[in-house]
Amino acid sequence: MGSALSVPSAVSNSVTLLGSPLDDDIVQSIRQTRFHPNLKLDIPDTVALAGASEQNDEIIKQADVIIIGVSSPGVEWALGEIKRVDARPDIIALVTKGLVAGGEPSAVPQTYAQYIDAELTSPSGRIVGIGGPCIARELALEFPTRVSFASTDLSAANKLRGLLQTDYYRITTSTDFTGLEACAALKNFMCIGVSAMFSAYELDDGYPKNPLAALFNQAVREIAILSQWITHAAAAPSNASSDSGPPGLGSSAFDLAGMGDLHVTVGGGRNSRLGRYIGAGERLHTVQKTSMKGVTVEGVDTGRQLLAGFRAACHDGRLNTKELPLTSAILATIESDEKFVFDFKSLPD
Amino acid sequence: MGSALSVPSAVSNSVTLLGSPLDDDIVQSIRQTRFHPNLKLDIPDTVALAGASEQNDEIIKQADVIIIGVSSPGVEWALGEIKRVDARPDIIALVTKGLVAGGEPSAVPQTYAQYIDAELTSPSGRIVGIGGPCIARELALEFPTRVSFASTDLSAANKLRGLLQTDYYRITTSTDFTGLEACAALKNFMCIGVSAMFSAYELDDGYPKNPLAALFNQAVREIAILSQWITHAAAAPSNASSDSGPPGLGSSAFDLAGMGDLHVTVGGGRNSRLGRYIGAGERLHTVQKTSMKGVTVEGVDTGRQLLAGFRAACHDGRLNTKELPLTSAILATIESDEKFVFDFKSLPD
Repeated sequence: MGSALSVPSAVSNSVTLLGSPLDDDIVQSIRQTRFHPNLKLDIPDTVALAGASEQNDEIIKQADVIIIGVSSPGVEWALGEIKRVDARPDIIALVTKGLVAGGEPSAVPQTYAQYIDAELTSPSGRIVGIGGPCIARELALEFPTRVSFASTDLSAANKLRGLLQTDYYRITTSTDFTGLEACAALKNFMCIGVSAMFSAYELDDGYPKNPLAALFNQAVREIAILSQWITHAAAAPSNASSDSGPPGLGSSAFDLAGMGDLHVTVGGGRNSRLGRYIGAGERLHTVQKTSMKGVTVEGVDTGRQLLAGFRAACHDGRLNTKELPLTSAILATIESDEKFVFDFKSLPD
Repeated sequence: MGSALSVPSAVSNSVTLLGSPLDDDIVQSIRQTRFHPNLKLDIPDTVALAGASEQNDEIIKQADVIIIGVSSPGVEWALGEIKRVDARPDIIALVTKGLVAGGEPSAVPQTYAQYIDAELTSPSGRIVGIGGPCIARELALEFPTRVSFASTDLSAANKLRGLLQTDYYRITTSTDFTGLEACAALKNFMCIGVSAMFSAYELDDGYPKNPLAALFNQAVREIAILSQWITHAAAAPSNASSDSGPPGLGSSAFDLAGMGDLHVTVGGGRNSRLGRYIGAGERLHTVQKTSMKGVTVEGVDTGRQLLAGFRAACHDGRLNTKELPLTSAILATIESDEKFVFDFKSLPD
C-alpha cells in the first residue's frame, strides 16, 4: 500500500519510497527495473527509492510528511526510526491498521494510530489516519478510489488531502480519528464471519446471497457499536457525552472506513479467504497451520487484541452481548477453535 | 416472492396462494405437480392454490392477513380485489416495491405502501411493509434470511412477525414505515449506478473493487438522504422536527432495507444487469430496446417517478444536489439517454 500510495503522491510532491529492513531486495529490484513485483506495474520514475540499510537520516529528517505503510509488526520499527533521528514531520499518516491490546485485561484496545500518537511525545507530529476501500494495485493503476483522512486536527487532514488528491484519488476528511482507525481494524475481523457465508450454504449456481447480505448488514452495525465503544473510551469523560447517541451520517462506521472498506474486504483478500474456509466447516487454527500457513490474517490478530477488553466490557455492561452476536461468534472461533456456526436466531430483534 | 413467502408462512398458518389474472397457467401447473417453475422447487402440500378467475371472495374476506406480492403494475388489481369484496383484513403486508409519482410536478413521490394505505379508507387495514435482502428462491430453500417488517403501528409489525417467523426467516420490526418502503424502492435505482462499476474499468483479473465500493458507500448515503426527504414530507409538519437530524442506527437506510438489500441487489438481478451494460458504455434506452427488451427494470421506473419531485426539491433547497451526485448521474442517464459516466470528482468532500 505504501508503494501504491507513491503513485498519486508523486503527482505533486517529491516522494521517497523507504523500505523496511525486510524490503532490501525489492528496493534494489525496483531501482533497476522500476517494476514492482507485487503491484505488477512500474513505479513512476519520479519516485526515489531507499533501502533501510542505507543512510536515511536526512531523508527522514527533511520529510514534511511521513506515511507509514508497514504491516502491524513493523510499526515499532517505523516509530523507532522517527524517534531515533528525532524527526518530527509536520504530518505523520498511517495506512497500517490494527488494534493494540490494552495493558489491563479490562482495558479497551487502542488503535495503532492512538498508540503512535501517544508514543510521539512533544513536539508531536500531527497524526492522520487513512481509511476506506482501497486495493493497492487498483490505486496504482489509477482507478477511481475514494478514501477518508481523519485527524483530531482537521487542518492536518485537509493539508494532507491538498498534497495527495488527484483526479482518481478522491479524499474526504473528518475529525473521527479514533473511529476511522477502529473501523479500519474491525472490518478485517468482521470480514471473516461475513465471508463464511460464501461457503456455509450450498447453492447450485453461485453463492447464497441472503445469508451473506444479512451478515454484511450486521457486521457494519456491530462495527458502529464497537468503534463507538473504542472512541468513547479514548475521549475524555467530559467529551464523551457530547458525541453520544447512535452513530449515523457523520460516523465512520457507515462510511468509507467501515461499510465501504468492508465491501472491498469481503470481495477478496486473506481475511475473506480464511472466512470461506471456516464457512465450509474447517477449523480456524487448522487452516492457519495448513492451507494458509504463514499467511498473516489481520482480522484474527484484531480479534485476539479485542478479546479481553470485549469480555470485560460485556461483563460490566459497557457493551451488550445481545447486540453483538457476530462479534461473539467470531471471537469464540478464534479463542476455542470450535467450528464456526452462526446461529441466525441470535440476531437481535 | 409471494410464492416464496408461502414457505415460511405455511409453517404455522393456513395459507392460500392466490394468483393474479396473469398467473392462471402457473396456478394450474403447481396444483398438479406442486413444482414452481420459477423458484425451481416444490411448494409445500399445505399451501392451497387459487386462480384469479375462480370464486375467491370468501378467501379474501376470511383472510386475517393479506400479503400483496404482485409486481408494481399489479398493485391496482390487488387493491381493487380487496375493495371489491369489502375485505378489511387485520393486516395487509406489502412485498411490492416502488414509488408513485406525486400529482404535482413539485410533489415528493409516495411509496406504494403509502398509496395503498391512503386508498384503503376507514375501516383501514393495518399496513406492514416488508423490506430487506431476500432472494425469493433462497427463502423458499429455507436459507437463513433476515428482513424487516415496518408499520406505523408497531403492534401490527410484531403480530405479523409472530405469525411468519421461523428458524430461518428472521424478522426485525420497526416503525420506520415510509423510510423502509422508500429504501426498498431506492435501492433498485441506486443499484444501476453502482453496478455500472463492474464494467466501467478494465482489470485483467476480476472486477475493479475500489470504484464499486466507493459507489456502494455513496449509494447507501444517498438512500439515507432521499428516504429522509420522502419520510419527512409524509410526516405531519409538527412531527417532522422530532425525528430530524442525520439518519443512523435506527434508520432503515443503514439497515436491512437499505444497505442490506442494496448488497443483494448489486450482487445480481435485472437492475444490476442493466447497470453492467451501461457501465460498459451502452446507452440505457438502447439496452432496454435490445439486450433487455421486455424486461421490467424497477430501478428505471423508480427513477422516472423520482424525477420531477427531485428536480423541484433541488431547485427550492429541500435537497442539496452536491450531496446527491450518484442520484443526479443516474437520473441524467434515464432522462437524456446519455452515456453513463460517473465523475468521481463530483463526490462531496
